[in-house]
Amino acid sequence: MSRKIIVAGAQLGSIARDEPRRSAVARMCAMMRAAHRRGATLVVFPELALTTFFPRWLLKGDALEAYFETDMPDADTAPLFALARDLGVGFHLGYAERTPEGRHFNTAILVGPDGQIAGKYRKIHLPGHFEQEDWRPFQHLEKRYFETGDLGFPVFDALGARLGMCICNDRRWPETWRMLGLGGAELVVLGYNTPLHYPPAPEHDHLQYFHNALSVQAGCYANGLWAVSVAKAGLEEGCELIGGSLIVAPTGEIVAQAQGVGDEVITAQIDLDRCAEIRANIFDFAQHREPQTYGLITAPKR
Amino acid sequence: MSRKIIVAGAQLGSIARDEPRRSAVARMCAMMRAAHRRGATLVVFPELALTTFFPRWLLKGDALEAYFETDMPDADTAPLFALARDLGVGFHLGYAERTPEGRHFNTAILVGPDGQIAGKYRKIHLPGHFEQEDWRPFQHLEKRYFETGDLGFPVFDALGARLGMCICNDRRWPETWRMLGLGGAELVVLGYNTPLHYPPAPEHDHLQYFHNALSVQAGCYANGLWAVSVAKAGLEEGCELIGGSLIVAPTGEIVAQAQGVGDEVITAQIDLDRCAEIRANIFDFAQHREPQTYGLITAPKR
Repeated sequence: MSRKIIVAGAQLGSIARDEPRRSAVARMCAMMRAAHRRGATLVVFPELALTTFFPRWLLKGDALEAYFETDMPDADTAPLFALARDLGVGFHLGYAERTPEGRHFNTAILVGPDGQIAGKYRKIHLPGHFEQEDWRPFQHLEKRYFETGDLGFPVFDALGARLGMCICNDRRWPETWRMLGLGGAELVVLGYNTPLHYPPAPEHDHLQYFHNALSVQAGCYANGLWAVSVAKAGLEEGCELIGGSLIVAPTGEIVAQAQGVGDEVITAQIDLDRCAEIRANIFDFAQHREPQTYGLITAPKR
Repeated sequence: MSRKIIVAGAQLGSIARDEPRRSAVARMCAMMRAAHRRGATLVVFPELALTTFFPRWLLKGDALEAYFETDMPDADTAPLFALARDLGVGFHLGYAERTPEGRHFNTAILVGPDGQIAGKYRKIHLPGHFEQEDWRPFQHLEKRYFETGDLGFPVFDALGARLGMCICNDRRWPETWRMLGLGGAELVVLGYNTPLHYPPAPEHDHLQYFHNALSVQAGCYANGLWAVSVAKAGLEEGCELIGGSLIVAPTGEIVAQAQGVGDEVITAQIDLDRCAEIRANIFDFAQHREPQTYGLITAPKR
């Protein structure tokens, strides 16, 4: 039986601070329809897709809490779930989650074509810093606003595939990809908000697109899996976010790539059975890994 | 104090089965002189640099043992050590090692400008297979001929740098780079013999150069270190080996690259202090790694 599916990355252009969630959801619905017309059965939206990227400001109290979702779906996001069900399309969505216990996570969910949540991931590699740093042109306060994800790197059977998730900065860490690969993932979906300007090392700003692609391509190749990696992009409240959304093959080859920094759908037909070209050969983990020599990798930090 | 050094990769063209070691050593001496004239203080030679790549044949007894070194240096390799001492140049050399106890390893050494061995590594990720497989146009019997390296992934203070080594297939495994990065390596030196044709998945043959570069660039970026990665290349006993020797920066950028598949010296001035651009920022391991979530990576194989 063929295991070919058409997947879509739905890159979002910028979301203004005063843009309501229902507007962002309407933009996503339009892209879901476009992806469906192109045959896609899975649509990947970016990290924190419902609002502007709020960790760029120091916020407190209600002004901060207003960016978090307590129910998923709720009245604002219900149209996306309903459309998915109507079209028979699954999707991936990133959002800021506040649990009933008042815990905060940078979260992504996988929603099946039945409109039900099939999987959840909470971001583990939180970038940035905890305190306001006045020298920066904008903040990156993820370490302040979110707890480290507590769900590990789960892999789900959904949409006929073994699906894994990670979020933004996670994609730069080889351990993320390896955990998902060892978990048997065939397809990793992820979203990101990546400023073009990195204040601590601005001499690398011109390399942001290169580092984005390098990280995803290397993760795919080293683990023999597909990835759909999707940006929130464009000039957002004075901060430029890179585009560069990608669909990458288990060989590390880019098979689809966004062309701009606005709302844009990319698609590719992917054959899940192609993972075996890598995983049954050069990276046959059972034959070739040597975990007894990797001790430092899981040693507690000094 | 400046920590800039000039490093060289000395790519070797093919070595015929009947080419004596003293001929290969003479070729390496010529390249060491050329590298020295270009200001290099470290010259990196490839894996198994003294002979043809013998794991492509099923060999037994004396015919096999003849490819292994028991003394390093010996009469054949002494000229390389002597020249290094004369020029005040360090070097890295790969060779097949037989220990006094009769154990066999795919080994690399680091030799200081004093001509003394400053470090040794034994290849951990052995590719290929154990039994002759008649369907293959050539064999890859590293799993038969070598034991898994028993020295871990050591890092040495030598030539004013923290130096790590790996060998050939090791470079494709993110764990290799991470172990060296966690060990504090600033510069990783390695050699390889990589056939252009990979019999189990020939549909990827056209990607060999891409996979070579992707693996080294990703390893450098994810760990904020320099690499000098050097091929034995060219048409060797009917088997085409890729070139593509590289010097790669901690940003993952290629700063020097071989142009052909013959004997060729590439050089670059590298600033060891540039590792901090990555390692003190986006990949500050102490701040940003989450080793408590990486358990599967060191779990015993199932």
